[in-house]
Amino acid sequence: MRELLRLTPGEVDLTAWDTRATPGFEGGKAEGRDALAALAPELADLQERLYAEGVAGSSRRVLLVLQGMDTSGKGGVVRHVAGLVDPQGLRVAGFGAPTAEELRHDFLWRIRRALPAPGRIGVFDRSHYEDVLAVKVRGLADPTEVERRYGAINDFEAELVAAGTPVLKCLLLISPDEQRERLLARMDDPTKQWKVAASDLEDRARWSAYREAYEVALRRTDTEVAPWYVVPADRKWYRNLAVATLLRETLAQMAPAWPPAVVDVADLRRRLLDEDPVA
Amino acid sequence: MRELLRLTPGEVDLTAWDTRATPGFEGGKAEGRDALAALAPELADLQERLYAEGVAGSSRRVLLVLQGMDTSGKGGVVRHVAGLVDPQGLRVAGFGAPTAEELRHDFLWRIRRALPAPGRIGVFDRSHYEDVLAVKVRGLADPTEVERRYGAINDFEAELVAAGTPVLKCLLLISPDEQRERLLARMDDPTKQWKVAASDLEDRARWSAYREAYEVALRRTDTEVAPWYVVPADRKWYRNLAVATLLRETLAQMAPAWPPAVVDVADLRRRLLDEDPVA
Repeated sequence: MRELLRLTPGEVDLTAWDTRATPGFEGGKAEGRDALAALAPELADLQERLYAEGVAGSSRRVLLVLQGMDTSGKGGVVRHVAGLVDPQGLRVAGFGAPTAEELRHDFLWRIRRALPAPGRIGVFDRSHYEDVLAVKVRGLADPTEVERRYGAINDFEAELVAAGTPVLKCLLLISPDEQRERLLARMDDPTKQWKVAASDLEDRARWSAYREAYEVALRRTDTEVAPWYVVPADRKWYRNLAVATLLRETLAQMAPAWPPAVVDVADLRRRLLDEDPVA
Repeated sequence: MRELLRLTPGEVDLTAWDTRATPGFEGGKAEGRDALAALAPELADLQERLYAEGVAGSSRRVLLVLQGMDTSGKGGVVRHVAGLVDPQGLRVAGFGAPTAEELRHDFLWRIRRALPAPGRIGVFDRSHYEDVLAVKVRGLADPTEVERRYGAINDFEAELVAAGTPVLKCLLLISPDEQRERLLARMDDPTKQWKVAASDLEDRARWSAYREAYEVALRRTDTEVAPWYVVPADRKWYRNLAVATLLRETLAQMAPAWPPAVVDVADLRRRLLDEDPVA
């Protein structure tokens, strides 16, 4: 699946992706959900090892970056994929419009502050990429500043990777029709109407501008050390399975190992068995 | 269950609690697990509403404080209870021995920095109570400073509650025998040996000193606005069910409601249906 979702360097054409496709998976929804459930124990085990390494002094961590148009399912991935591991080992961060304080700093300032602690899996629901996507499409920064940011992002991610933090970047790709269905469902659900914003339609009206901004961003920031993956996301079950699979492989490549005991366990064990009564 | 776990003000005698008891629950392990699973949808729904309120501008949040001797199951509660809700709405913080930087500040400095954002459920795995427990038993602070802290804690928690943040404080109570079994199991499991520390036995040897420190702390900080709950924790399934039940009731009392739409949804809906083709 990994190879099939990997962006082909130099050939970034998002219209070429079928957003309803399920690359690398033969089954349907039921099989997809089963496959996700089957991944859970391995994901949880890998996460626990990574966490243990962090406690033992390793500085390795993982960063999962989720990007996509509104309703593409970033929150769903947090719930259904990140939700498979121990919350103690997670750091979820969402990035909305920057605050006044954040705007006074470089665009990466708030990003760095939200990085996961050692041993943790960080999940970014939107990310520094908004600063070359929404910011570009909405004209919120000077073009030369946007231009500078692609390089700054590559430097930042290379720095993370060099420090032992793989950066797994997933673009959740939905079609305009699928988005319309999801927006309508949101509008018709009293428990979801609070999420409806005028900006939903504004961004939707700029669909092609966003696609172009994504294509440029993917082209400029798809690096050897931090490649992009494109996840067809019209089918929610496939989207979850695909991101879980990518995360599992990322963790497996790190091969986190249970740290050795820091004390003489056999000796402590003897002392525990020989101790005076405790009460 | 809530009333049964509520500390009786003025009668703080931890030896009077049966750590294997299951107050307020008739069934056994299988029924207890089913009951926890049955709670999950309501917990998730309440958490989602609280989160939505936070997005909509409310500053309400929840703080769950977990205290207990080593192996009492604080981490298990994080995994099995906090793990029932959307990780996006959680902020888990663990407090080990303070760093050099933390020691340069008041003991509440690092605690305040770890408070959940609006709309989130914060979970403290150990907390500011260590500063009147481990610190007291190990003699790491002046007795007058420890004395000062009870009042500081009450002020701090009253401030949180006044600002709309209930503070749910749970002491997970295990017996020394149960702890011995759990320490032995940890020592015999190659995937857990990294957790074994010499301090496990040192703290265990001070069991009665810790119990006394807990009794004083409970007596001094069991307030009307932020009461203590004692959770018999020798049975893991009951411990999880009890904390989940307390958390559910805390959230239910807040009665978080879906925020109203911020836009004219009917109008946006019409515009969405009438829009020009998007691609």
